[in-house]
Amino acid sequence: MNGRNLRVNGERLWSRLMEMAEIGATPKGGVCRLTVSDEDRIGRDLFAKWCREAGLTVEVDAMGNMFARRKGRLAGPAVMSGSHLDSQPTGGKFDGALGVLAALEVVEALNDAGIETEHPIEIVNWTNEEGARFAPAMVSSGVYAGEFDMDAVYDGRDRAGLRFGDELARIGYKGDAPMGGRDWKASFEVHIEQGPILEQEDKLVGVVARVQGIRWFDVTLHGAEVHAGTTPMDRRRDPIRALHEMLKGCYEMAAAHGEWARFTVGDMTVQPGSRNTVPGRVTFTIDLRHPEDQVLDSMERAIRAAGEAAGTPHGIDVEVTRIWASAPVVFDAGCIAAVAQAADLCGYETREMISGAGHDSVYVARSTPTAMIFVTSKDGISHNEAEYSSPEACEAGANVLLHAVLEQAGVAG
Amino acid sequence: MNGRNLRVNGERLWSRLMEMAEIGATPKGGVCRLTVSDEDRIGRDLFAKWCREAGLTVEVDAMGNMFARRKGRLAGPAVMSGSHLDSQPTGGKFDGALGVLAALEVVEALNDAGIETEHPIEIVNWTNEEGARFAPAMVSSGVYAGEFDMDAVYDGRDRAGLRFGDELARIGYKGDAPMGGRDWKASFEVHIEQGPILEQEDKLVGVVARVQGIRWFDVTLHGAEVHAGTTPMDRRRDPIRALHEMLKGCYEMAAAHGEWARFTVGDMTVQPGSRNTVPGRVTFTIDLRHPEDQVLDSMERAIRAAGEAAGTPHGIDVEVTRIWASAPVVFDAGCIAAVAQAADLCGYETREMISGAGHDSVYVARSTPTAMIFVTSKDGISHNEAEYSSPEACEAGANVLLHAVLEQAGVAG
Repeated sequence: MNGRNLRVNGERLWSRLMEMAEIGATPKGGVCRLTVSDEDRIGRDLFAKWCREAGLTVEVDAMGNMFARRKGRLAGPAVMSGSHLDSQPTGGKFDGALGVLAALEVVEALNDAGIETEHPIEIVNWTNEEGARFAPAMVSSGVYAGEFDMDAVYDGRDRAGLRFGDELARIGYKGDAPMGGRDWKASFEVHIEQGPILEQEDKLVGVVARVQGIRWFDVTLHGAEVHAGTTPMDRRRDPIRALHEMLKGCYEMAAAHGEWARFTVGDMTVQPGSRNTVPGRVTFTIDLRHPEDQVLDSMERAIRAAGEAAGTPHGIDVEVTRIWASAPVVFDAGCIAAVAQAADLCGYETREMISGAGHDSVYVARSTPTAMIFVTSKDGISHNEAEYSSPEACEAGANVLLHAVLEQAGVAG
Repeated sequence: MNGRNLRVNGERLWSRLMEMAEIGATPKGGVCRLTVSDEDRIGRDLFAKWCREAGLTVEVDAMGNMFARRKGRLAGPAVMSGSHLDSQPTGGKFDGALGVLAALEVVEALNDAGIETEHPIEIVNWTNEEGARFAPAMVSSGVYAGEFDMDAVYDGRDRAGLRFGDELARIGYKGDAPMGGRDWKASFEVHIEQGPILEQEDKLVGVVARVQGIRWFDVTLHGAEVHAGTTPMDRRRDPIRALHEMLKGCYEMAAAHGEWARFTVGDMTVQPGSRNTVPGRVTFTIDLRHPEDQVLDSMERAIRAAGEAAGTPHGIDVEVTRIWASAPVVFDAGCIAAVAQAADLCGYETREMISGAGHDSVYVARSTPTAMIFVTSKDGISHNEAEYSSPEACEAGANVLLHAVLEQAGVAG
């Protein structure tokens, strides 16, 4: 048996998604299952119970990352698939949970069919992907990858002053499995798209080949605070005037850099913020994304030039500070091909995607060949209680995962 | 004696300005003499002492407005001149105090010269012109003019929760003189320009013929909150995009409406204000000024059109709400002429001015022929500890006031 005709049980997957979504369920149909909360503990316990019932061994490391392993004919390396069970404070049922439960469903389908793989399969639930309760996001895959220092992460506090490390211990998920260095030959993550592209093209699944690079900037426009009534327009150093000219340049920049360019001003502060005073200072944020570092360089240059061009004629000093950057990620060609072939085999029309958001797979990809599978999101809505992906879409994502995993893990015998 | 050669004592005026500025003096050389505070009480007491020493009778009404009267040959009506002794929290030495002390200096100069006027002269210190501790501004001249209800004003509270009426009584300035309806034939107010025009033209004094009309607006741009990474630019309803296009239209509107048009965005809020989320909503304030109501109408239409034009292509609903308006004021031709002639007589080059800011004279003008005298401000700076007008400029303002008052009050005998 080569397993080519094998499919997951979509009803079981959906029923588990809905059962998991009851833990931390919100009145508007969403989920509040913040990392290392009581709800997170209950969700983890349920996941661990399902894993053990499926014959898997469950290990937990010092960041609370859970590793559920199905033996292969060989001792290793394993094919990994995982995502996260934590949610935003007013999150949806699918962001994260789909990736973990789709991986579990792959194992269940193999169990049902009595298929042994050459390589072991390991399902991962990464702790605190969201970063909503304790910043930053993707922190445990980041510690795994050596990006963050574990003790510093332990010392992070939520708004109530509670310490991450204490909360992790309190819910009983500060484990003793070694941190990092697990023996994986490939990794796949199913995730909802959280954007509108697949729905627009009427596709259930997408093959994620890359992840956008992200650069964050703080911009300050320094003007001079003067009276709104007594100061003629041509005697002002009005930062709002420079603002609108700079923004025009930025939106033109975004349009000039193609369909994957993203430019977002998410927050702004005007000081002193008095109705009848020309502001002395305007500060705002820029979130800039593109899948190619060279293009990001060009976009950043264009932003700085737009600031300079907007500020100079009005006597406004424009300060553009890059405060964070995440390099673009190109996933592994073999894993991408495995996902694309799996979709073909299952008969799903698909397309290559670039993830606009960060995922644990970004850090996993540093040490393990990785690719992702996107599942269509209704109206592109996510981080929102209205988040929705259909049973068909979830099933399709799990089927593609199943065959990508099988391709990498190999059928024994 | 017709008094044509009479001049004020500039040194006495300056010395009193500096003495008054010691009450509530700030480390940076400014003044914090908030209305109905202990500092306000001490300043009022000093002013009343000087008035009594100058032979004036002092009355206080129920809003704490102080009326210091110099008898004329006739019982009435009086020529009034006044301003305010309260300051901004980090205000300067001249805003308000100059107008009150220049009026006192006029009386002192007449006393020194032994000149009796036909009509009495009344100096007024208006309570809470600034509106900094208790909003709104110009509240006591407003109650005097019937614009505000006194009991409602009494119930106003400062940030510490203290009630205006209680504080007024506490400092001992809740008086028993009748509210409103005083018998005045003309009114003059000396005030610093708080703008750059006189300094730019190297003039000490200006003849204020009009006060700009003001309209305040709240603007809301309604978009849709989506993920900054996963949502293509052309799939967004991004209010920041409409913002910059609307602002462009507004600044063009201001330029198209001549030198007296003023357009100011003083405050702005972006919601939810998350760095990696396209905002769902942007709100900002508009302060619009012009000396002609018809032009204000045209400016308002242009703002609304700019909002519509900016919002529609991007699916942004633009809501422009006018929340307050103050009609333009044209001062009395006779009083304006009296000021202009007084400046001529004293040999000051002058120009006609339009006040961009509100003053107590706006409310006084409703019942009394009124004009104002502007004194040049260094760098146009006001509501700031760095506010400065030179001894020469202050003296010039008082000399012009002296002769405008004399023209209206008439020399007896």
